[in-house]
Amino acid sequence: MNPKIQWLRNKITNMDLQGMIISNPINIKYLTNIEAEGTLILTRKENIYITDGRYIEAVQNTVTVFDEIVVYDVRDISQEEYENFFMYCENVGFEENYVTYAKYKEFKYRYKIHNLVETENIVEQQRMIKDEEELENIKKACEITRKCFEEISKHLVPEKTELEIAKKIDTYFSENAEGIAFETIVASGENSSRPHAVPTNRKFTEQDIVVIDIGCKINGYCSDMTRTFFIGEPTEEQQKVYNLVKKNHDQSIRDIYDGVNAKMIAKGVENDFNLNRFNLIHSLGHGVGLEVHERPFLSTKVDFTLREKMVITIEPGIYLSGQFGVRIEDTILVQKACATIL
Amino acid sequence: MNPKIQWLRNKITNMDLQGMIISNPINIKYLTNIEAEGTLILTRKENIYITDGRYIEAVQNTVTVFDEIVVYDVRDISQEEYENFFMYCENVGFEENYVTYAKYKEFKYRYKIHNLVETENIVEQQRMIKDEEELENIKKACEITRKCFEEISKHLVPEKTELEIAKKIDTYFSENAEGIAFETIVASGENSSRPHAVPTNRKFTEQDIVVIDIGCKINGYCSDMTRTFFIGEPTEEQQKVYNLVKKNHDQSIRDIYDGVNAKMIAKGVENDFNLNRFNLIHSLGHGVGLEVHERPFLSTKVDFTLREKMVITIEPGIYLSGQFGVRIEDTILVQKACATIL
Repeated sequence: MNPKIQWLRNKITNMDLQGMIISNPINIKYLTNIEAEGTLILTRKENIYITDGRYIEAVQNTVTVFDEIVVYDVRDISQEEYENFFMYCENVGFEENYVTYAKYKEFKYRYKIHNLVETENIVEQQRMIKDEEELENIKKACEITRKCFEEISKHLVPEKTELEIAKKIDTYFSENAEGIAFETIVASGENSSRPHAVPTNRKFTEQDIVVIDIGCKINGYCSDMTRTFFIGEPTEEQQKVYNLVKKNHDQSIRDIYDGVNAKMIAKGVENDFNLNRFNLIHSLGHGVGLEVHERPFLSTKVDFTLREKMVITIEPGIYLSGQFGVRIEDTILVQKACATIL
Repeated sequence: MNPKIQWLRNKITNMDLQGMIISNPINIKYLTNIEAEGTLILTRKENIYITDGRYIEAVQNTVTVFDEIVVYDVRDISQEEYENFFMYCENVGFEENYVTYAKYKEFKYRYKIHNLVETENIVEQQRMIKDEEELENIKKACEITRKCFEEISKHLVPEKTELEIAKKIDTYFSENAEGIAFETIVASGENSSRPHAVPTNRKFTEQDIVVIDIGCKINGYCSDMTRTFFIGEPTEEQQKVYNLVKKNHDQSIRDIYDGVNAKMIAKGVENDFNLNRFNLIHSLGHGVGLEVHERPFLSTKVDFTLREKMVITIEPGIYLSGQFGVRIEDTILVQKACATIL
């Protein structure tokens, strides 16, 4: 059996579950490599993927004998068969953080399940730890992103617009990767004070700051990086804020290794910002993988122990409303004794 | 007050709800134009949008006095305030088809709501009917898509690959629109027999069929169109299947106007396919708007009355496993006495 499904089977057995319904397509892609619309169910004896006519052929071509996944067309399943899937299962797990309230009710009714049990993101927890193949994909996506920054940095001159630069980036990623991992951010001047600014027709002028936050995908895996550029010479205040953000970005990465509490790292940045009369208004970082934002989330409020083979971003930022903002972000790999920028 | 929110307030009053929690970001964008992460709540007296530090400034810049929306930073809301929002509200609506089971439980606990009531997609139902501005956006997206087809049709020659063409399309949409509305499909030869094929390095050869399914976005509104091309002369069977699909595509559009049952249209196509020993393996079409797939869904199984100002696709397709597929799709506007291709 596919080792990721085998892992999940062992995991749910330990939780006293006799079956599980996996609905989150990203978890399904992680476990099976299937990219389609459908539901993966682990019954007592079988692994079953239920999809529809649009995907049957593609799914059949993706799964191997080795996977031990039986593929069903949803049209061919009778109500009786639904009820048989989990017969003699006392407890069946479901993804309470993905499944809607309406779907939860439908599961209960359709599969006639006595105990639908919350599984507290077991698959997402496992996805935090990246294997070699996953790391290779993320590394490649990061390399391409770095090259994209090199390429576009030549075009950051007065009179160019945010949208022109954003389109260059999107084209670069569609030509050199599987396209963008999230909506490209190019925010100049006062727009840079909004962390999630959408590119506009604003033209760059002297003494503008330009915050560029971008990422691409390789085999479904994402990169996420931010650089802050100056058009011409920065003002004294811009330089001061930039230095403070850069210092905290670098220090955070130096402080991270297996076993460190992410909350303490985030607190360190918050304290240094506060000392300088600024605030840390968003989390310090997040996991990156099949999703550009995934577990873990690095907050000043929640204890979380970083572990070897986790891939996370470090992205301190300072935003002065109506003036400018600075953010510097890298995707890093947590290792036994250090962290490395990917 | 913003007319769309006023409409929703009247609607929920008729449903004996004293408040509502709107979580689906697309419904929030539709109602308020806000594009952020957050929750819109309608209390007895106020419209409140709850977001976080990353979006506060952008949201403040989007909402107008006329909207009558109060913006809160989630960090500033105490447990007591949460409980006050729906005080004296007997029934509060929520989006059971969007909200996860975990979130449903959190709502009950956080807002101390007695009766969290399912609202059966009231906002999505309203979104089916497009106003002038929405129509303009979709029309523009369709025009750009048509031009993209013109542009790339020149490149559909032997030795070109699916991926090369897909990248041209993505670049075209990132330069002429807000990028792609969904993952571009370029499926040639036997790949075309998979309705949701992902572009590969397969090279086109003589007598290939190439199915191209693409769309772009304008102000958040999508287009969705499919064309089937021949490389060189088609075989007799390819031409026969193509003609049958084209005939049913054209006939369906001719048969649609305000008041028609979509199920009968889909049944008509299914019958004609079956008569010719083929099957209709996916639905005949779907609504298009802020989402590329939205209500209504045109199936052979569900009665649904098409109404004036709905925008839907018509996309009959025939797929011969391991051989080839043909699909032809247009985005159309349902009108009083006819339907027009957008």
